[in-house]
Amino acid sequence: MISGFSKLSKVEKIDYLVENYFSGSSRVKGDLKAFWHDNPNSQKVFDEFSENTITNFYSPYGVVPNFMLNDKLHMVPIVTEESSVVAALSKAAKFWSTRGGFKAQVVDTEKLGQVHFIWNGEKSKLEEFFNSNYENIIAHITPLTRNMEKRGGGVKSLTLVDMSDKEEGYFQIKAAFETCDAMGANFINSVLESIGSYLKTAIPAHDAFSDSEKEIQVVMCILSNYTPNCLVKAWVECGIEELYEPSQEMSADEFVEKFTRAVRIAQIDVHRATTHNKGIFNGIDGVILATGNDFRAVEACGHTHAARDGQYRSLTNYKIYDGKFRFEIELPLALGTVGGLTNLHPLAKMSLDMLENPSAKELMMITASVGLAQNFAALRSLVTSGIQKGHMKMHLMNILNQLEATESEKEIVRTEFEHKVVSFKGVRDLLESVRSLQ
Amino acid sequence: MISGFSKLSKVEKIDYLVENYFSGSSRVKGDLKAFWHDNPNSQKVFDEFSENTITNFYSPYGVVPNFMLNDKLHMVPIVTEESSVVAALSKAAKFWSTRGGFKAQVVDTEKLGQVHFIWNGEKSKLEEFFNSNYENIIAHITPLTRNMEKRGGGVKSLTLVDMSDKEEGYFQIKAAFETCDAMGANFINSVLESIGSYLKTAIPAHDAFSDSEKEIQVVMCILSNYTPNCLVKAWVECGIEELYEPSQEMSADEFVEKFTRAVRIAQIDVHRATTHNKGIFNGIDGVILATGNDFRAVEACGHTHAARDGQYRSLTNYKIYDGKFRFEIELPLALGTVGGLTNLHPLAKMSLDMLENPSAKELMMITASVGLAQNFAALRSLVTSGIQKGHMKMHLMNILNQLEATESEKEIVRTEFEHKVVSFKGVRDLLESVRSLQ
Repeated sequence: MISGFSKLSKVEKIDYLVENYFSGSSRVKGDLKAFWHDNPNSQKVFDEFSENTITNFYSPYGVVPNFMLNDKLHMVPIVTEESSVVAALSKAAKFWSTRGGFKAQVVDTEKLGQVHFIWNGEKSKLEEFFNSNYENIIAHITPLTRNMEKRGGGVKSLTLVDMSDKEEGYFQIKAAFETCDAMGANFINSVLESIGSYLKTAIPAHDAFSDSEKEIQVVMCILSNYTPNCLVKAWVECGIEELYEPSQEMSADEFVEKFTRAVRIAQIDVHRATTHNKGIFNGIDGVILATGNDFRAVEACGHTHAARDGQYRSLTNYKIYDGKFRFEIELPLALGTVGGLTNLHPLAKMSLDMLENPSAKELMMITASVGLAQNFAALRSLVTSGIQKGHMKMHLMNILNQLEATESEKEIVRTEFEHKVVSFKGVRDLLESVRSLQ
Repeated sequence: MISGFSKLSKVEKIDYLVENYFSGSSRVKGDLKAFWHDNPNSQKVFDEFSENTITNFYSPYGVVPNFMLNDKLHMVPIVTEESSVVAALSKAAKFWSTRGGFKAQVVDTEKLGQVHFIWNGEKSKLEEFFNSNYENIIAHITPLTRNMEKRGGGVKSLTLVDMSDKEEGYFQIKAAFETCDAMGANFINSVLESIGSYLKTAIPAHDAFSDSEKEIQVVMCILSNYTPNCLVKAWVECGIEELYEPSQEMSADEFVEKFTRAVRIAQIDVHRATTHNKGIFNGIDGVILATGNDFRAVEACGHTHAARDGQYRSLTNYKIYDGKFRFEIELPLALGTVGGLTNLHPLAKMSLDMLENPSAKELMMITASVGLAQNFAALRSLVTSGIQKGHMKMHLMNILNQLEATESEKEIVRTEFEHKVVSFKGVRDLLESVRSLQ
């Protein structure tokens, strides 16, 4: 047990760590420091995003060119450690750029939060209290909402929700927000805590309540990451015959038949749906990370949405009509292009610059389209050549680079692994035997 | 439109990007390169993890000390850009270290994959084909499974699943795998594609089938990220009276009453459940990223699991018995400590070293416990002081550091924002007016 670890300086933390977990290895110390930014002021920004930080974790930052969305070409920044994601997105972007590109539309941008509280008494009296105090609550939170209102946002509505059939005395004030270009978590939580404080004062002071009705327990005040009305749609569409590509090695009709079946399977089979949506988030999270948004929030919301009808299903769907193929996605995405890390992380800021400083709505459309593009690319691979061909090639290259293989060694290993499962150990062993023969 | 972008060198890609999206700014070029690793060979490894890479995205890499799990102390590496996550984990680790620590247990480690295919005919004949060819399929995939079998893994079972009530002629071969310390995605996908190939040859050659029954369409062969039997449990437990902490400003009984209510609310209310689980993944993904595992896979699996009974619910639960409080989590986690990026990413490798090179099972236990710890800390804040106090303090510090505020400026701004919502613009404006007065 160490006491006071968080109070140590960064270098002292590293010293403690290396002393106790790496036998004092100076190589490990050097490795950790080698990942620091050369500029100490830049590094300090990263050090203070979180706590007990000792270095930076690197994830590859790549770009997808030629991403046509609503008739405009984008260069989309993607942060992902997974090989093939950027390659797949680039292929999908290119494919659709000559078939009308991606289209997207924001349905709504409503954010949500809840004050969860316990109150026992005559329900109609609580409703009367809530209705007659509605304006007082709004006035109470105005110091917090004023700035957001100036930007066109604020609290859209407050609703008293009766959950007492599920838990004795359990009610909520459900608050809907418009947070403009901010994700708005801090704003929403501050407003909700203020509403909680209001209830704790006003309920005991409300004359119409009996003594026991003057008691309230505010359990917690917190935004909801499930925002079904912060919703965006994206789609691609073309004539079925336009889907023909020689590399697919099948007719456009056969391709559509298999592709749409793969989508239906992800609608009806939970095990497939999870993987199908996982792939969608390969693309989505790439944009989320690159722009300084919160991928845990986006994942939790998207997957809850996928399970909204009682069975976890695909987030994408398709339509065939008038000889046309349409592939679409609809999902809630609560994003920000101001606030949070968007201004603070230099690469998040650069990503937003690269996207020509989109509004939160524009970023929702870009992100949803990237999710759709990833899913299109994945399904196309799956129903044509299978995905392993590309994946294994990438994985093999990663291993060979790490083992510092020469070009001629790479050639030998590639040939040998053409029909084998690539594993680190297998490649290393082969490389060692190749090298021992040289 | 640019053609052949992926063929450009990294520097050429940056030149194109900066020319076309940053007006040729040499500052942007310098900024991108400043995030490269000083050692070109180290940088090359990151460049080739993905495609079209131009630099590295930094996420803070921190550590949680004093994490007691199954009577052993760990230093847990966490990669997160979100402030308060590591601080919350450190507090929870400290709290439980004097109350018996975390306990965890792996229930099972079964991975899954599916060959999805379309076959129309007499179902009993397909079953007969499958049963009589079972050993042939196993023999067919042996070249791929041999190495995994040497390590104690391989294919555990193949099952023919009839899905034809949901989609005409739709069947699956559902394969269960043991992949030992590997996450196993490449292994599983290779085996599944090989089973798919087998079916495409063996079904047309099966004499008992009629001509139309000799037709098969293999739609896709792919692992499932939903692995309900790759399951781990973690829990903490102590006497209720031991939960008293002066900082909570309430009795142990009141604390338990509010805390357990917060858990029940996350069981019954979808909007709360999403946020509750999002917090759990704040912790989990921190370990996942730090150890080179795939957070999209873990998220998709965990959230599908949360929705398994038809309503999306909390992943944690509690028990009160014999004067004791027990808080627990159960979730599927398909992780690897060999293969994938675990050996290739230098910091993932270091994370595994720091954890004393755990098996996949041990990493499952560590990760689940970290998820539980994060949830404990979040709920404790929510039902006591609320979460904004800590969050806003951190966020304000981030902004002040980015604006290079002096200590005396920080003091002025902190006082001013004690009861206001922190925003970048608000802080910058105040700081500017403070500076103009100096």
